Amino acid sequence: MGDANVKIGEDLYKWATELFPINRSITGEGVRETLKYIKNLIPDLKINSISSGDKVFDWIIPDEWNVKDAYIESPEGTKIADFKKNNLHLMGYSIPVNRVMSLTELQSHLYSINEVPDAIPYVTSYYNRNWGFCISHNDRKKLPDGNYKVFIDSTLTKGKLNYGEIIIPGKSRKEVLISTYICHPSMANNEVSGIVVTTKLAKWLNEQNNTQYTYRIVFVPETIGSIAYIHRNFSIMKRNVIGGFVVTCVGDNNNYSILNSKYENTLFDKIGNNVIKYYTKNNFNRYSFLDRGSDERQYSSVGVDIPIISLMRTKYGEYNEYHTSLDNLNFISPQGLYGGFEIHKKAIILLENNFIYKVVLPCEPQLGKKGLYPLVSTRETQKQVETMMNFIAYADGKTDLVTIANRINVDALECIEIINSLLIEKVIIRIEQG
Amino acid sequence: MGDANVKIGEDLYKWATELFPINRSITGEGVRETLKYIKNLIPDLKINSISSGDKVFDWIIPDEWNVKDAYIESPEGTKIADFKKNNLHLMGYSIPVNRVMSLTELQSHLYSINEVPDAIPYVTSYYNRNWGFCISHNDRKKLPDGNYKVFIDSTLTKGKLNYGEIIIPGKSRKEVLISTYICHPSMANNEVSGIVVTTKLAKWLNEQNNTQYTYRIVFVPETIGSIAYIHRNFSIMKRNVIGGFVVTCVGDNNNYSILNSKYENTLFDKIGNNVIKYYTKNNFNRYSFLDRGSDERQYSSVGVDIPIISLMRTKYGEYNEYHTSLDNLNFISPQGLYGGFEIHKKAIILLENNFIYKVVLPCEPQLGKKGLYPLVSTRETQKQVETMMNFIAYADGKTDLVTIANRINVDALECIEIINSLLIEKVIIRIEQG
Amino acid sequence: MGDANVKIGEDLYKWATELFPINRSITGEGVRETLKYIKNLIPDLKINSISSGDKVFDWIIPDEWNVKDAYIESPEGTKIADFKKNNLHLMGYSIPVNRVMSLTELQSHLYSINEVPDAIPYVTSYYNRNWGFCISHNDRKKLPDGNYKVFIDSTLTKGKLNYGEIIIPGKSRKEVLISTYICHPSMANNEVSGIVVTTKLAKWLNEQNNTQYTYRIVFVPETIGSIAYIHRNFSIMKRNVIGGFVVTCVGDNNNYSILNSKYENTLFDKIGNNVIKYYTKNNFNRYSFLDRGSDERQYSSVGVDIPIISLMRTKYGEYNEYHTSLDNLNFISPQGLYGGFEIHKKAIILLENNFIYKVVLPCEPQLGKKGLYPLVSTRETQKQVETMMNFIAYADGKTDLVTIANRINVDALECIEIINSLLIEKVIIRIEQG
Repeated sequence: MGDANVKIGEDLYKWATELFPINRSITGEGVRETLKYIKNLIPDLKINSISSGDKVFDWIIPDEWNVKDAYIESPEGTKIADFKKNNLHLMGYSIPVNRVMSLTELQSHLYSINEVPDAIPYVTSYYNRNWGFCISHNDRKKLPDGNYKVFIDSTLTKGKLNYGEIIIPGKSRKEVLISTYICHPSMANNEVSGIVVTTKLAKWLNEQNNTQYTYRIVFVPETIGSIAYIHRNFSIMKRNVIGGFVVTCVGDNNNYSILNSKYENTLFDKIGNNVIKYYTKNNFNRYSFLDRGSDERQYSSVGVDIPIISLMRTKYGEYNEYHTSLDNLNFISPQGLYGGFEIHKKAIILLENNFIYKVVLPCEPQLGKKGLYPLVSTRETQKQVETMMNFIAYADGKTDLVTIANRINVDALECIEIINSLLIEKVIIRIEQG
Repeated sequence: MGDANVKIGEDLYKWATELFPINRSITGEGVRETLKYIKNLIPDLKINSISSGDKVFDWIIPDEWNVKDAYIESPEGTKIADFKKNNLHLMGYSIPVNRVMSLTELQSHLYSINEVPDAIPYVTSYYNRNWGFCISHNDRKKLPDGNYKVFIDSTLTKGKLNYGEIIIPGKSRKEVLISTYICHPSMANNEVSGIVVTTKLAKWLNEQNNTQYTYRIVFVPETIGSIAYIHRNFSIMKRNVIGGFVVTCVGDNNNYSILNSKYENTLFDKIGNNVIKYYTKNNFNRYSFLDRGSDERQYSSVGVDIPIISLMRTKYGEYNEYHTSLDNLNFISPQGLYGGFEIHKKAIILLENNFIYKVVLPCEPQLGKKGLYPLVSTRETQKQVETMMNFIAYADGKTDLVTIANRINVDALECIEIINSLLIEKVIIRIEQG
Repeated sequence: MGDANVKIGEDLYKWATELFPINRSITGEGVRETLKYIKNLIPDLKINSISSGDKVFDWIIPDEWNVKDAYIESPEGTKIADFKKNNLHLMGYSIPVNRVMSLTELQSHLYSINEVPDAIPYVTSYYNRNWGFCISHNDRKKLPDGNYKVFIDSTLTKGKLNYGEIIIPGKSRKEVLISTYICHPSMANNEVSGIVVTTKLAKWLNEQNNTQYTYRIVFVPETIGSIAYIHRNFSIMKRNVIGGFVVTCVGDNNNYSILNSKYENTLFDKIGNNVIKYYTKNNFNRYSFLDRGSDERQYSSVGVDIPIISLMRTKYGEYNEYHTSLDNLNFISPQGLYGGFEIHKKAIILLENNFIYKVVLPCEPQLGKKGLYPLVSTRETQKQVETMMNFIAYADGKTDLVTIANRINVDALECIEIINSLLIEKVIIRIEQG
């Protein structure tokens, strides 16, 4: 990893560290604070809102939830489950409470995980008015009998659901969707990682000159936020969006994973699988749409029909720390985040270069006289010549780069330089985007 | 197995027991007696006939064969191979004989199986005039030298080939064919089991209110009978029959089997494979059309082109007792027959419910407010919700239930209740039959 | 192997032996001498030429190369690397040289193979003017210091590139291409074997009466020769050639191999794979187009688009002796060459018989009355009846013989006799070539 890349990883980790403590949910101040932080990094970001009570397809935007304080006071008078120490202690969307109750009554509002006894679990109750506290199972077992004071200083009022979006225009009106979610409180891989990697992708795309595709980048609360976003942008998305990425769980340092799209083998699946295969030297986990769990559920729903993939490090639900306080800043790393960014960058570079090409003359070209043969023949250059000849063999004016690369078993990105030489030497011509 | 189902199994076994002794062949009194027995159970059954000498495609209806008595008298004067004790002793379509002959001459008319030395084999000679007796190999080895009296009191005369049919009309003129064969003498799995299970299916379908499909249920002698039936009903079958089942070998208690159709992956293959997979917990034998051996040979022939599957217990040819006297009432059982009935019933229920569905609104529905989320979350209910969400994800207005079920790896029958809830809540609408 | 076949193998080996010593290259006297030898065997062969300097697509026909003598004289005055002893000693297209030089200077013009130290390697430099000698690595290591005389009496002058062709007309103007190459000097499997097998195929096809297809048989220098040939015959080949064979490496006695065509599963792939599977009892090596290395590179290039397969013994590049002096007359054998001829003959017989057939009547035919049932039933005849019934089941008027054979898992060639019986008995009719 070069110095510049180390720097990127460190920047991403710094942003993650600063975003981590904010109390995000599907609505509320934490969401706005998060969006403001992102806008500080990408000034073009538009922060929009939908009002509580608005109907979006089958759903209604809920009241806005805000929390000033929340804790339990033990019979001995010590504060436990203190929201100010860790916002995971309070169940998301807890209603205000200020009461004294027995341990028995309290227990029915406590959440902990037997199997991960050190972790505070992440629990929400968006659509059933309720309250609860989440604590580690070890702490829970130590609770003495007696009377507990429960204090939740929260509000649930008509307000706004907020989201951010930035459209980066390209030569084509065809759009690529990049979506991440901003509703998770203090968890690192799931999900400040997606926020910071998507922010970096937006910055990087902004620096590109005149991309082929237009990029629609959105920061939404999961589920209700993506549904609201689709509802508001339905016609334009149906007309323009050809596919996209849900960016999530891109911060840890373990194996990469891909979640394939609903009907598999779309352009985005081909792109994602080629990139992940060669980026990871074929060492990655492959999941099907049946394993889905994020906003591809909305973007790829019947009627919306956008093919979506996710390129992840460790997939949500597949690690012990998932949805607990153990998914913290120690679980992610600068290198982990950098990898999460780089694999998306590579996928986008491939998308941008994924044209259909056609060989100009019948029969193989004479590479030697065009200077397309390497002067020194090494195993490496032999491989390049083989790739070049195989690419030429299949560049039939009907098949796009990634499909050819998958057929001839090579890294599509490694073909791009070869293709440029072939274009210069007029061996091939470019037809259209794949 | 509930009491009602035990009762069904016992009824089926009782019918099998009563049908077992009848001397069936491709023509003759035994066929008519069998059809009368069935008509007693399904009064709507039509018993039809075609005359000897009639041409049906490449074939000619043979003379009718009837037998009063047949036996061999040993040199010591004892009766052996007595037709009245077991009708398998006489080769099907044996001509009349009344002669004394040496053991040597007799031997060329005897049939036995070295490998299954206790069994009387099942042998016929429909189209070459001949005679023969079938005995166990053990008995054959004990035959002393000497003169044997051979007595066959049979007739081969112009007569009829009989078959039974019942059409159970449904909402659609599209027909499902259910065919079994009535030409096998005293054998139980192959083939009184198909007769009694088909009879029960006819009774059960008769009790249904207004099925989607029309059901064409036929009881024919194998090969010549199905050819004659197709010849007589060619136009209507070509116009209406969309596929069907040959019901055979459905009485033993061993593993289930499926014989797939000629081009595989038709609606009937999808239905059959989904049902057998989940009914048997994926413990079944799968055969291809290359393993065929019954009337799918005619129904699926070029020019007739009806896709046919068979859902069986142990497939014909795959058990030692096959085509011998050991395929007797001990080889089948009430439970075996009940299973043979039930798997067909399930396949038909799935066919009847195999509509194309379409989700009404973009994005996922909010299940909670519709009461579609279970109140208590167990592993079982979680699985149901997952199935529901997966079904919704793929209900695109183009894909039928069974195709979705096969894609999302679930029992299609378990989707029916879910679909009904979704229809009631207007999450999906029904489009047309798959 | 019958006597006639032994004779064919011996003839092929004799031709190979006589062709072996000739100094072939992409141009020159050796090519013409080779073509004259072939014309002696197939008088209809046309020997054509293209002039040096002519442009053929991206290439230019090079000057003609001829050699009178070439050797190195050691410091002790002994001749080494004597072209007259083995033409592989001289790098192909070496320019004339007559100089004395140090061992150090000489070394940069010597070629040997460390891993195969006894072999003289085969090296050429067609398009970069250069000179070189090829010797065994063992000999090279023994070279003493001192002054070496290098003598190459070669010419590179405007001249001709020669090739041979013969068109054997059939009922259809649709053509099958059979191509082999005549540019390799003294090597046996790669490539006098292809020359002699192709010659024998041409003789055999000439003896056939009125084939279905027209056969275009060409003997060309590899790469530049096939490119020149395509250039000259582009329109007619695009219009008529439906596919073909590059005949190469068909002389050794080891396992058979198939190189599949570019898009696989074409008629020629189906034919080749069916033939090789049953001819070798499923013991063969399968290569993809990505493993290609001969003139399919030109014939199957984008714009030419002819599907080509190769049926080989040991594939080029896959044996240690490849492209060295060890690929000599000991590496091939009469039996090896006969097998190379026979597998192509079988493929052509299958092509010629690969019609689409359609069953005439609905339902299965009554084989017995047509005499299509064997009188004596053996395992062999049972297999034949099964093949016949399976063929009838799939002869739907849309599927060609080889596709049916691959589906019903039988040797397509074994179906031909069965098909002829069915045609005579009017069970099936022939529709068109597959």
